[in-house]
Amino acid sequence: MANEDEIREKLAVSSRILTMKGLIGLYGHVSAYDPDTGRVYVTPGAGSDRANVQPEEMFVFTTAGEKLSGEGRLAAEWPIHTAIHALRPDALAVAHLHAPYSTLFSIAKREFRPVTLNGAMAGLGSGLPLFEELGLVTKVEQGQRLAKELGSHRAILMLGYGSAVVGSSVEDLIHACLTLEDNAIKIYQAAVLGEVRSFTPEECEVIYNKRMPFGVDAAWQYFTRQESRWGRQPETSWHPLE
Amino acid sequence: MANEDEIREKLAVSSRILTMKGLIGLYGHVSAYDPDTGRVYVTPGAGSDRANVQPEEMFVFTTAGEKLSGEGRLAAEWPIHTAIHALRPDALAVAHLHAPYSTLFSIAKREFRPVTLNGAMAGLGSGLPLFEELGLVTKVEQGQRLAKELGSHRAILMLGYGSAVVGSSVEDLIHACLTLEDNAIKIYQAAVLGEVRSFTPEECEVIYNKRMPFGVDAAWQYFTRQESRWGRQPETSWHPLE
Amino acid sequence: MANEDEIREKLAVSSRILTMKGLIGLYGHVSAYDPDTGRVYVTPGAGSDRANVQPEEMFVFTTAGEKLSGEGRLAAEWPIHTAIHALRPDALAVAHLHAPYSTLFSIAKREFRPVTLNGAMAGLGSGLPLFEELGLVTKVEQGQRLAKELGSHRAILMLGYGSAVVGSSVEDLIHACLTLEDNAIKIYQAAVLGEVRSFTPEECEVIYNKRMPFGVDAAWQYFTRQESRWGRQPETSWHPLE
Amino acid sequence: MANEDEIREKLAVSSRILTMKGLIGLYGHVSAYDPDTGRVYVTPGAGSDRANVQPEEMFVFTTAGEKLSGEGRLAAEWPIHTAIHALRPDALAVAHLHAPYSTLFSIAKREFRPVTLNGAMAGLGSGLPLFEELGLVTKVEQGQRLAKELGSHRAILMLGYGSAVVGSSVEDLIHACLTLEDNAIKIYQAAVLGEVRSFTPEECEVIYNKRMPFGVDAAWQYFTRQESRWGRQPETSWHPLE
Repeated sequence: MANEDEIREKLAVSSRILTMKGLIGLYGHVSAYDPDTGRVYVTPGAGSDRANVQPEEMFVFTTAGEKLSGEGRLAAEWPIHTAIHALRPDALAVAHLHAPYSTLFSIAKREFRPVTLNGAMAGLGSGLPLFEELGLVTKVEQGQRLAKELGSHRAILMLGYGSAVVGSSVEDLIHACLTLEDNAIKIYQAAVLGEVRSFTPEECEVIYNKRMPFGVDAAWQYFTRQESRWGRQPETSWHPLE
Repeated sequence: MANEDEIREKLAVSSRILTMKGLIGLYGHVSAYDPDTGRVYVTPGAGSDRANVQPEEMFVFTTAGEKLSGEGRLAAEWPIHTAIHALRPDALAVAHLHAPYSTLFSIAKREFRPVTLNGAMAGLGSGLPLFEELGLVTKVEQGQRLAKELGSHRAILMLGYGSAVVGSSVEDLIHACLTLEDNAIKIYQAAVLGEVRSFTPEECEVIYNKRMPFGVDAAWQYFTRQESRWGRQPETSWHPLE
Repeated sequence: MANEDEIREKLAVSSRILTMKGLIGLYGHVSAYDPDTGRVYVTPGAGSDRANVQPEEMFVFTTAGEKLSGEGRLAAEWPIHTAIHALRPDALAVAHLHAPYSTLFSIAKREFRPVTLNGAMAGLGSGLPLFEELGLVTKVEQGQRLAKELGSHRAILMLGYGSAVVGSSVEDLIHACLTLEDNAIKIYQAAVLGEVRSFTPEECEVIYNKRMPFGVDAAWQYFTRQESRWGRQPETSWHPLE
Repeated sequence: MANEDEIREKLAVSSRILTMKGLIGLYGHVSAYDPDTGRVYVTPGAGSDRANVQPEEMFVFTTAGEKLSGEGRLAAEWPIHTAIHALRPDALAVAHLHAPYSTLFSIAKREFRPVTLNGAMAGLGSGLPLFEELGLVTKVEQGQRLAKELGSHRAILMLGYGSAVVGSSVEDLIHACLTLEDNAIKIYQAAVLGEVRSFTPEECEVIYNKRMPFGVDAAWQYFTRQESRWGRQPETSWHPLE
């Protein structure tokens, strides 16, 4: 991520894509870390207009959790981002999702295993941990405990309400968020039909080695195009709380 | 709620939000109580244009069930509102919903427990009672029995067709309606995956104490904005009967 | 139904409502019977533009199955309509639906029982029969066997693909079609949660006596209004085959 | 298929229909074979604008897998198409789908059997094989093994991500793709309700003989009309990964 303008622009677009896809809604947010300056950029919080997030709306923090700038509605759970960026230098982008199907795995007692090719390629081979502390993550220390439990995983589930997902870039993050949710819905639906076949870590390795090298870029190209012509209309019927 | 104009305006908006989200459809309605005048304001009934409800369309009642004003299609089940407002002075707003997922808990023998953070924060810790009388609530005495069974709960399920939900304000009510439905869909979906973890009343307390203090206002801001740009188009594919 | 113009107009509107709601799609059709002339009017068949059906597109038959007029794409299964109208003089309107959830009860071995108030009021108390002949109903004799099995029921399921529903008027038919589908989806969803409580014929009677007398008209008013502002756009994601 | 222009046009339309219906999304593609010239035409790959595919965007191959022309984003899994066209001269059209419900049968251990009339008519009587090799089919030899396992079936499931479907024409292929997905969703949904009744090969034969002879053409007419007025807007809420 070359500079601040690019980071802000990509965060705004990615936040609108996640809104369009119903993964972030009212309560989620996205962040990116700039290793050159040590700054963390976070999209705005609940009540803001997620279908129209703009680059200038970002809040800026240090990884220690000091707010440097930003006005308007601050995300109550910003410590999720600063803590993960502090502990995971490989994770240049982090999303806190309220994704309808992934969240089920923070409610039902069922392991989140890779069952789709994309899931296998996205590093889900070792499953996802569940952060079991009660309530919102609004304190630095809570964020640090969450980041520690995340460890080297791709994502962590948060009891009763969502998840945190990491990516090596904003593009990789968006691909991972969509992939995890797709993997979640497929487990949910396949469970009705019979025994569900998930991929072992060794099988994930084989699948990963046969991937399209341009897969993440192709998805970014596809969904940014979709977002650019999105009508920004809300759903007219019920879908899970945003 | 400062005055009649504000009450009427908020009721109209909240009714359109519930229509947009598919929770009220053809048969639901919303009411608000003005403690200064003792009046109950109720949105219009079946057959009216729920996507375009306006402030001047409200029906006005006393809590004893005397109709003071209102023209057009009166809600057949208006006694739900007058009876609850009479018995629950803390409930300044009441909705009768035909919400697709909450209603399942009035059909299947399964307890409605809090499984989401929002559910835990919305006062679902003690579960929801089920009103088992057969048929529509069109008489004052039926409304009174319903209000009595509601007791101090956040909501009551109505056998085979819906629910009544209460809020300390119109804003709090809308947040509660959306939260209950989200909690309902999450139980429904998680049930397929395995044992469902619900929060105990004590856990709900812990979660409530970590909430965003501005949560209800943030949701109101978010959904009124959504509603203001809603296309008012009906669904083009099947969704539950409105 | 006073005259031919009115019958044709109501059939066109009702066919567009069922298209909008995803109950008729590519393969369903609707008919009405004029007792004054003995004529049966049937909407056009597969391949025609169901979102834009017009009054002049109807095919006209005798109840014996003689085609009197109509050009374009004739519904292959027109004998469903002529046979039912011949045997059920109370059924002034008949729909052949490919409704996504009702159809499940022609595939899974599960009884279709009333579980919603609307279902209880719509005469589902005695359940629905299943017509088990294989394949499309394209012959007069098949239609007659179907009509015989329908008997005095509100509807009959057709093995592996749909149903036939009857109404005392076009308005009553539309209300019944939407009500049956809602009842079907509710059984389908409640089944995941636990034991499903259905209403006995005696309970249905009690519920029916507490109904809104203007219920059918309110629904007709509501859905014709919706249809008049429908964008006529198809679904952009998967929904069951039309 | 009379000539190259017609093949290219039909492929573009069919690809847009599958996009509109959510069966092809980001990763699927369609092909057609011209027996007069021995050429295989394939729609573009991941990252391209599937809602707006045009005739000039096709890639052209020999059945041996030699690329003759085409620019832009080549489908990584083109060998699926060339290999099937080489082995199945009756299959003038082939689709690689990432269809949300059919794919479940490549994850859950459950047989894909015909349960709908359309499924019975589409040649699903003998069920569908599952190709169990791990990872994307990007090599000619993989495509050949896939084609061999497909054998004379209507389609083959691909472990953890999709399917390949064949048709005697582009029109027949589109009908088959929609029919298979509808059959898949019906099994998925009916499974919740109880024992699922599927048709035996003998029953499929009976049903096939009672089909509408114009069924494939009617569907093509219907869905090309739908596609022509499609708004090309993406989904605003979650649906399976495209």
